[in-house]
Amino acid sequence: MHPLAYEELPVPAGVEPFRPEEHPGLTVWFTGLSSAGKTTIATEVRRRLLRLRMRTEVLDGDSLRKHLSSDLGFSKQDRDTNIRRIGFVANLLSRNGVIVLVAAISPYQEVREEVRSKIGRFAEVYVNAPLQVCERRDVKGLYKKARRGELRHFTGIDDPYEPAPDLECQTHLESVSECADKVMRLILSSRMQK
Amino acid sequence: MHPLAYEELPVPAGVEPFRPEEHPGLTVWFTGLSSAGKTTIATEVRRRLLRLRMRTEVLDGDSLRKHLSSDLGFSKQDRDTNIRRIGFVANLLSRNGVIVLVAAISPYQEVREEVRSKIGRFAEVYVNAPLQVCERRDVKGLYKKARRGELRHFTGIDDPYEPAPDLECQTHLESVSECADKVMRLILSSRMQK
Repeated sequence: MHPLAYEELPVPAGVEPFRPEEHPGLTVWFTGLSSAGKTTIATEVRRRLLRLRMRTEVLDGDSLRKHLSSDLGFSKQDRDTNIRRIGFVANLLSRNGVIVLVAAISPYQEVREEVRSKIGRFAEVYVNAPLQVCERRDVKGLYKKARRGELRHFTGIDDPYEPAPDLECQTHLESVSECADKVMRLILSSRMQK
Repeated sequence: MHPLAYEELPVPAGVEPFRPEEHPGLTVWFTGLSSAGKTTIATEVRRRLLRLRMRTEVLDGDSLRKHLSSDLGFSKQDRDTNIRRIGFVANLLSRNGVIVLVAAISPYQEVREEVRSKIGRFAEVYVNAPLQVCERRDVKGLYKKARRGELRHFTGIDDPYEPAPDLECQTHLESVSECADKVMRLILSSRMQK
Protein backbone atom coordinates (compact mmCIF):
# COMPACT_ATOMS: atom_id res chain seq x y z
CA MET A 1 0.00 0.00 0.00
CA HIS A 2 1.02 3.56 -0.59
CA PRO A 3 2.20 4.96 2.77
CA LEU A 4 0.42 8.30 2.43
CA ALA A 5 -3.33 8.41 2.99
CA TYR A 6 -5.07 10.78 0.60
CA GLU A 7 -6.37 12.83 3.52
CA GLU A 8 -2.80 13.94 4.18
CA LEU A 9 -2.29 15.28 0.69
CA PRO A 10 -2.49 19.04 0.35
CA VAL A 11 -5.75 20.32 -1.08
CA PRO A 12 -5.05 20.70 -4.79
CA ALA A 13 -4.70 24.24 -6.10
CA GLY A 14 -7.86 25.47 -7.76
CA VAL A 15 -10.12 23.07 -5.93
CA GLU A 16 -12.83 25.07 -4.40
CA PRO A 17 -15.65 23.55 -2.43
CA PHE A 18 -18.85 22.87 -4.31
CA ARG A 19 -21.94 23.94 -2.40
CA PRO A 20 -24.90 23.09 -4.59
CA GLU A 21 -27.06 25.73 -2.93
CA GLU A 22 -24.63 28.39 -4.17
CA HIS A 23 -24.52 27.05 -7.72
CA PRO A 24 -28.11 26.52 -8.69
CA GLY A 25 -28.24 24.95 -12.11
CA LEU A 26 -31.31 25.25 -14.25
CA THR A 27 -32.77 23.50 -17.26
CA VAL A 28 -34.30 25.78 -19.86
CA TRP A 29 -36.28 23.66 -22.28
CA PHE A 30 -36.92 25.23 -25.70
CA THR A 31 -39.79 23.51 -27.49
CA GLY A 32 -41.57 24.25 -30.75
CA LEU A 33 -41.87 23.24 -34.37
CA SER A 34 -38.94 22.35 -36.58
CA SER A 35 -37.36 25.58 -37.91
CA ALA A 36 -39.06 27.70 -35.24
CA GLY A 37 -35.63 28.90 -34.03
CA LYS A 38 -35.00 26.82 -30.88
CA THR A 39 -31.33 26.06 -31.52
CA THR A 40 -30.65 29.59 -32.78
CA ILE A 41 -31.97 31.17 -29.58
CA ALA A 42 -30.32 28.56 -27.34
CA THR A 43 -26.98 29.15 -29.04
CA GLU A 44 -27.26 32.92 -28.57
CA VAL A 45 -28.19 32.48 -24.89
CA ARG A 46 -25.23 30.15 -24.45
CA ARG A 47 -22.91 32.76 -25.96
CA ARG A 48 -24.17 35.33 -23.48
CA LEU A 49 -23.92 32.97 -20.50
CA LEU A 50 -20.35 32.10 -21.43
CA ARG A 51 -19.56 35.82 -21.55
CA LEU A 52 -20.79 35.96 -17.94
CA ARG A 53 -18.60 32.91 -17.28
CA MET A 54 -21.50 30.73 -16.28
CA ARG A 55 -21.44 26.98 -16.81
CA THR A 56 -23.71 26.14 -19.72
CA GLU A 57 -24.40 23.45 -22.30
CA VAL A 58 -26.74 23.29 -25.27
CA LEU A 59 -28.39 19.89 -25.67
CA ASP A 60 -29.64 19.97 -29.22
CA GLY A 61 -32.33 17.45 -30.13
CA ASP A 62 -30.74 16.45 -33.43
CA SER A 63 -27.33 15.98 -31.91
CA LEU A 64 -28.71 14.10 -28.90
CA ARG A 65 -30.63 11.75 -31.15
CA LYS A 66 -27.39 10.88 -32.86
CA HIS A 67 -25.46 10.35 -29.64
CA LEU A 68 -28.10 8.81 -27.39
CA SER A 69 -31.04 7.64 -29.47
CA SER A 70 -29.84 6.50 -32.87
CA ASP A 71 -32.16 3.53 -32.43
CA LEU A 72 -35.33 5.57 -31.94
CA GLY A 73 -37.89 6.74 -34.47
CA PHE A 74 -40.65 9.33 -34.30
CA SER A 75 -43.61 7.41 -32.91
CA LYS A 76 -45.07 8.92 -29.75
CA GLN A 77 -43.40 6.23 -27.65
CA ASP A 78 -39.98 6.76 -29.24
CA ARG A 79 -40.27 10.52 -28.97
CA ASP A 80 -41.13 10.19 -25.28
CA THR A 81 -38.17 7.86 -24.68
CA ASN A 82 -35.89 10.34 -26.43
CA ILE A 83 -37.19 13.21 -24.26
CA ARG A 84 -36.69 11.14 -21.10
CA ARG A 85 -33.08 10.46 -22.11
CA ILE A 86 -32.42 14.15 -22.75
CA GLY A 87 -34.11 14.92 -19.41
CA PHE A 88 -31.88 12.42 -17.63
CA VAL A 89 -28.74 14.11 -18.99
CA ALA A 90 -30.10 17.61 -18.32
CA ASN A 91 -30.80 16.63 -14.73
CA LEU A 92 -27.24 15.34 -14.17
CA LEU A 93 -25.80 18.56 -15.54
CA SER A 94 -28.12 21.04 -13.90
CA ARG A 95 -27.75 19.50 -10.45
CA ASN A 96 -24.04 20.17 -10.85
CA GLY A 97 -24.59 23.86 -11.43
CA VAL A 98 -24.85 23.93 -15.21
CA ILE A 99 -27.43 26.05 -17.07
CA VAL A 100 -28.69 23.47 -19.54
CA LEU A 101 -30.32 24.75 -22.72
CA VAL A 102 -32.33 21.97 -24.35
CA ALA A 103 -33.51 22.58 -27.90
CA ALA A 104 -35.89 19.81 -28.89
CA ILE A 105 -39.28 19.78 -30.58
CA SER A 106 -40.66 17.74 -27.64
CA PRO A 107 -44.25 18.13 -28.72
CA TYR A 108 -45.96 16.26 -25.89
CA GLN A 109 -46.81 18.13 -22.73
CA GLU A 110 -47.14 15.07 -20.51
CA VAL A 111 -43.55 13.90 -20.87
CA ARG A 112 -42.25 17.47 -20.57
CA GLU A 113 -44.14 17.71 -17.27
CA GLU A 114 -42.63 14.39 -16.18
CA VAL A 115 -39.15 15.73 -16.91
CA ARG A 116 -39.93 19.01 -15.16
CA SER A 117 -41.04 17.22 -12.01
CA LYS A 118 -37.82 15.15 -11.95
CA ILE A 119 -35.49 18.07 -12.52
CA GLY A 120 -37.22 20.65 -10.35
CA ARG A 121 -35.41 23.77 -11.52
CA PHE A 122 -36.94 23.81 -14.98
CA ALA A 123 -38.38 26.45 -17.29
CA GLU A 124 -40.15 25.82 -20.55
CA VAL A 125 -39.75 28.28 -23.41
CA TYR A 126 -42.16 27.93 -26.30
CA VAL A 127 -40.38 29.02 -29.46
CA ASN A 128 -43.41 29.88 -31.48
CA ALA A 129 -43.72 30.74 -35.12
CA PRO A 130 -46.71 29.91 -37.31
CA LEU A 131 -46.43 26.68 -39.25
CA GLN A 132 -46.37 28.58 -42.57
CA VAL A 133 -43.34 30.57 -41.39
CA CYS A 134 -41.49 27.45 -40.21
CA GLU A 135 -42.34 25.69 -43.44
CA ARG A 136 -41.04 28.62 -45.47
CA ARG A 137 -37.76 28.58 -43.50
CA ASP A 138 -37.50 24.75 -43.67
CA VAL A 139 -33.87 24.93 -42.59
CA LYS A 140 -33.32 21.18 -42.92
CA GLY A 141 -35.65 20.54 -45.86
CA LEU A 142 -37.81 18.34 -43.63
CA TYR A 143 -41.16 20.00 -44.31
CA LYS A 144 -40.73 19.33 -48.01
CA LYS A 145 -40.12 15.67 -47.27
CA ALA A 146 -43.09 15.53 -44.90
CA ARG A 147 -45.39 17.13 -47.49
CA ARG A 148 -44.23 14.59 -50.04
CA GLY A 149 -45.10 11.85 -47.55
CA GLU A 150 -41.47 10.74 -47.16
CA LEU A 151 -41.51 11.55 -43.45
CA ARG A 152 -44.36 10.45 -41.23
CA HIS A 153 -45.23 11.66 -37.72
CA PHE A 154 -43.92 15.12 -38.54
CA THR A 155 -44.85 17.63 -35.84
CA GLY A 156 -47.22 20.27 -37.20
CA ILE A 157 -48.04 18.24 -40.32
CA ASP A 158 -49.38 14.87 -39.21
CA ASP A 159 -48.36 14.93 -35.54
CA PRO A 160 -49.61 17.26 -32.79
CA TYR A 161 -47.79 19.91 -30.78
CA GLU A 162 -48.96 20.82 -27.26
CA PRO A 163 -47.63 24.11 -25.84
CA ALA A 164 -47.50 24.86 -22.09
CA PRO A 165 -44.85 27.54 -21.72
CA ASP A 166 -43.36 29.56 -18.87
CA LEU A 167 -42.16 31.97 -21.54
CA GLU A 168 -42.96 32.42 -25.21
CA CYS A 169 -40.76 33.73 -28.02
CA GLN A 170 -42.47 34.59 -31.27
CA THR A 171 -39.68 34.32 -33.75
CA HIS A 172 -41.69 35.75 -36.65
CA LEU A 173 -42.17 38.98 -34.65
CA GLU A 174 -39.13 39.16 -32.34
CA SER A 175 -35.45 39.15 -33.26
CA VAL A 176 -33.02 36.50 -31.97
CA SER A 177 -31.53 39.15 -29.73
CA GLU A 178 -34.90 40.12 -28.27
CA CYS A 179 -35.74 36.47 -27.61
CA ALA A 180 -32.36 35.88 -25.97
CA ASP A 181 -32.92 38.96 -23.79
CA LYS A 182 -36.15 37.47 -22.46
CA VAL A 183 -34.54 34.12 -21.74
CA MET A 184 -31.55 35.75 -20.03
CA ARG A 185 -33.90 37.66 -17.75
CA LEU A 186 -35.66 34.40 -16.93
CA ILE A 187 -32.36 32.66 -16.12
CA LEU A 188 -30.83 35.45 -14.08
CA SER A 189 -33.99 36.12 -12.07
CA SER A 190 -34.33 32.39 -11.34
CA ARG A 191 -30.78 32.39 -10.02
CA MET A 192 -31.48 35.36 -7.80
CA GLN A 193 -34.46 33.59 -6.28
CA LYS A 194 -32.64 30.27 -5.98
CA MET B 1 -40.34 44.34 -24.71
CA HIS B 2 -39.11 44.50 -21.17
CA PRO B 3 -37.42 47.90 -20.71
CA LEU B 4 -34.41 46.54 -18.81
CA ALA B 5 -31.70 44.74 -20.75
CA TYR B 6 -30.33 41.78 -18.86
CA GLU B 7 -26.86 43.31 -18.88
CA GLU B 8 -28.16 45.97 -16.50
CA LEU B 9 -29.39 43.45 -13.97
CA PRO B 10 -27.20 43.02 -10.93
CA VAL B 11 -25.03 39.92 -10.96
CA PRO B 12 -27.05 37.34 -9.03
CA ALA B 13 -25.81 36.47 -5.58
CA GLY B 14 -23.86 33.26 -5.50
CA VAL B 15 -22.95 33.39 -9.17
CA GLU B 16 -19.28 33.01 -9.41
CA PRO B 17 -17.43 32.96 -12.69
CA PHE B 18 -16.69 29.54 -14.12
CA ARG B 19 -13.14 29.24 -15.41
CA PRO B 20 -12.81 25.71 -16.73
CA GLU B 21 -9.05 25.74 -16.22
CA GLU B 22 -9.63 26.17 -12.48
CA HIS B 23 -12.21 23.39 -12.31
CA PRO B 24 -10.68 20.49 -14.12
CA GLY B 25 -13.18 17.68 -14.26
CA LEU B 26 -12.07 14.13 -14.76
CA THR B 27 -13.60 10.85 -15.84
CA VAL B 28 -12.51 7.82 -13.82
CA TRP B 29 -13.66 4.73 -15.65
CA PHE B 30 -13.97 1.58 -13.51
CA THR B 31 -14.01 -1.55 -15.65
CA GLY B 32 -13.98 -5.22 -14.78
CA LEU B 33 -16.14 -8.31 -14.49
CA SER B 34 -19.61 -8.34 -13.01
CA SER B 35 -19.37 -8.50 -9.19
CA ALA B 36 -15.72 -7.38 -9.24
CA GLY B 37 -16.63 -4.38 -7.05
CA LYS B 38 -16.76 -1.46 -9.49
CA THR B 39 -19.87 0.21 -8.12
CA THR B 40 -18.82 -0.43 -4.51
CA ILE B 41 -15.50 1.35 -4.99
CA ALA B 42 -17.03 4.15 -7.09
CA THR B 43 -19.64 4.77 -4.40
CA GLU B 44 -17.00 4.94 -1.67
CA VAL B 45 -14.89 7.35 -3.76
CA ARG B 46 -17.97 9.49 -4.36
CA ARG B 47 -18.63 9.63 -0.61
CA ARG B 48 -15.10 10.86 -0.01
CA LEU B 49 -15.23 13.43 -2.83
CA LEU B 50 -18.49 14.80 -1.48
CA ARG B 51 -16.86 15.14 1.92
CA LEU B 52 -14.24 17.32 0.19
CA ARG B 53 -17.15 19.18 -1.43
CA MET B 54 -16.10 18.29 -4.92
CA ARG B 55 -18.63 17.91 -7.74
CA THR B 56 -19.06 14.23 -8.49
CA GLU B 57 -21.45 11.77 -10.09
CA VAL B 58 -21.46 7.99 -10.30
CA LEU B 59 -22.62 6.72 -13.69
CA ASP B 60 -23.48 3.12 -12.99
CA GLY B 61 -23.68 0.81 -16.00
CA ASP B 62 -26.89 -0.89 -14.89
CA SER B 63 -28.64 2.37 -14.16
CA LEU B 64 -27.40 3.98 -17.37
CA ARG B 65 -28.65 1.04 -19.39
CA LYS B 66 -32.10 1.60 -17.94
CA HIS B 67 -32.08 5.35 -18.56
CA LEU B 68 -30.22 5.61 -21.87
CA SER B 69 -30.02 2.20 -23.49
CA SER B 70 -33.12 0.19 -22.66
CA ASP B 71 -33.17 -0.81 -26.31
CA LEU B 72 -29.69 -2.33 -26.37
CA GLY B 73 -28.58 -5.91 -25.80
CA PHE B 74 -25.18 -7.43 -25.11
CA SER B 75 -23.74 -8.04 -28.56
CA LYS B 76 -20.38 -6.37 -29.15
CA GLN B 77 -22.05 -3.68 -31.23
CA ASP B 78 -24.69 -2.93 -28.61
CA ARG B 79 -22.12 -2.91 -25.80
CA ASP B 80 -20.01 -0.46 -27.78
CA THR B 81 -23.00 1.81 -28.43
CA ASN B 82 -23.83 1.72 -24.72
CA ILE B 83 -20.25 2.67 -23.81
CA ARG B 84 -20.27 5.53 -26.33
CA ARG B 85 -23.48 6.86 -24.78
CA ILE B 86 -22.02 6.72 -21.28
CA GLY B 87 -18.87 8.38 -22.62
CA PHE B 88 -20.95 11.16 -24.17
CA VAL B 89 -22.61 11.92 -20.83
CA ALA B 90 -19.33 11.62 -18.90
CA ASN B 91 -17.73 14.11 -21.28
CA LEU B 92 -20.52 16.68 -20.80
CA LEU B 93 -20.20 16.40 -17.04
CA SER B 94 -16.45 16.34 -16.73
CA ARG B 95 -15.92 19.35 -18.98
CA ASN B 96 -18.13 21.23 -16.52
CA GLY B 97 -15.85 20.40 -13.62
CA VAL B 98 -17.47 17.19 -12.38
CA ILE B 99 -15.43 14.16 -11.27
CA VAL B 100 -17.35 11.44 -13.10
CA LEU B 101 -17.07 7.90 -11.75
CA VAL B 102 -18.21 5.42 -14.38
CA ALA B 103 -18.80 1.85 -13.21
CA ALA B 104 -19.39 -0.33 -16.26
CA ILE B 105 -18.03 -3.71 -17.34
CA SER B 106 -16.95 -2.13 -20.67
CA PRO B 107 -14.91 -5.15 -21.71
CA TYR B 108 -13.55 -3.88 -25.04
CA GLN B 109 -10.39 -1.84 -25.03
CA GLU B 110 -10.94 -0.24 -28.43
CA VAL B 111 -14.11 1.61 -27.50
CA ARG B 112 -12.68 2.60 -24.11
CA GLU B 113 -9.73 4.14 -25.99
CA GLU B 114 -12.15 5.93 -28.29
CA VAL B 115 -13.94 7.41 -25.28
CA ARG B 116 -10.65 8.32 -23.63
CA SER B 117 -9.49 10.21 -26.71
CA LYS B 118 -12.76 12.18 -26.83
CA ILE B 119 -12.80 13.08 -23.15
CA GLY B 120 -9.11 13.78 -22.68
CA ARG B 121 -8.99 13.91 -18.88
CA PHE B 122 -9.63 10.21 -18.37
CA ALA B 123 -8.25 7.48 -16.15
CA GLU B 124 -9.05 3.80 -16.37
CA VAL B 125 -9.23 1.71 -13.21
CA TYR B 126 -9.28 -2.03 -13.64
CA VAL B 127 -11.29 -3.53 -10.82
CA ASN B 128 -9.81 -6.96 -10.88
CA ALA B 129 -10.84 -10.07 -9.07
CA PRO B 130 -10.47 -13.61 -10.42
CA LEU B 131 -13.50 -14.98 -12.21
CA GLN B 132 -14.02 -17.60 -9.49
CA VAL B 133 -14.21 -14.89 -6.84
CA CYS B 134 -16.68 -12.82 -8.85
CA GLU B 135 -18.74 -15.89 -9.56
CA ARG B 136 -18.82 -16.78 -5.88
CA ARG B 137 -20.03 -13.26 -5.02
CA ASP B 138 -22.54 -13.19 -7.90
CA VAL B 139 -24.26 -10.15 -6.40
CA LYS B 140 -27.00 -10.07 -9.02
CA GLY B 141 -27.29 -13.81 -9.65
CA LEU B 142 -26.12 -13.30 -13.23
CA TYR B 143 -23.31 -15.85 -13.28
CA LYS B 144 -25.78 -18.56 -12.32
CA LYS B 145 -27.98 -17.58 -15.24
CA ALA B 146 -25.00 -17.44 -17.60
CA ARG B 147 -23.81 -20.90 -16.52
CA ARG B 148 -27.31 -22.24 -17.12
CA GLY B 149 -27.15 -20.72 -20.61
CA GLU B 150 -29.97 -18.26 -19.89
CA LEU B 151 -27.68 -15.30 -20.53
CA ARG B 152 -25.42 -15.18 -23.54
CA HIS B 153 -22.49 -12.88 -24.23
CA PHE B 154 -21.65 -12.80 -20.54
CA THR B 155 -18.26 -11.21 -19.91
CA GLY B 156 -15.81 -13.74 -18.46
CA ILE B 157 -18.00 -16.72 -19.40
CA ASP B 158 -18.60 -16.60 -23.14
CA ASP B 159 -17.46 -13.04 -23.88
CA PRO B 160 -13.95 -11.58 -23.56
CA TYR B 161 -12.56 -8.92 -21.25
CA GLU B 162 -9.58 -6.79 -22.30
CA PRO B 163 -7.80 -4.89 -19.52
CA ALA B 164 -5.64 -1.78 -20.16
CA PRO B 165 -5.57 0.06 -16.86
CA ASP B 166 -3.95 3.21 -15.50
CA LEU B 167 -4.58 1.75 -12.06
CA GLU B 168 -5.57 -1.67 -10.81
CA CYS B 169 -7.57 -2.62 -7.72
CA GLN B 170 -7.51 -6.27 -6.71
CA THR B 171 -10.67 -6.61 -4.73
CA HIS B 172 -9.92 -10.16 -3.54
CA LEU B 173 -6.74 -8.84 -1.87
CA GLU B 174 -7.47 -5.18 -1.05
CA SER B 175 -10.30 -3.74 1.02
CA VAL B 176 -12.81 -1.25 -0.39
CA SER B 177 -11.12 1.44 1.68
CA GLU B 178 -7.66 0.59 0.33
CA CYS B 179 -8.98 0.64 -3.24
CA ALA B 180 -10.71 3.97 -2.65
CA ASP B 181 -7.45 5.36 -1.21
CA LYS B 182 -5.63 4.53 -4.42
CA VAL B 183 -8.31 6.10 -6.59
CA MET B 184 -8.44 9.24 -4.44
CA ARG B 185 -4.69 9.66 -4.84
CA LEU B 186 -5.12 9.30 -8.60
CA ILE B 187 -7.88 11.92 -8.67
CA LEU B 188 -6.22 14.46 -6.41
CA SER B 189 -2.85 14.20 -8.09
CA SER B 190 -4.46 14.61 -11.51
CA ARG B 191 -6.12 17.79 -10.25
CA MET B 192 -2.83 19.10 -8.98
CA GLN B 193 -1.24 18.58 -12.39
CA LYS B 194 -4.25 19.96 -14.24
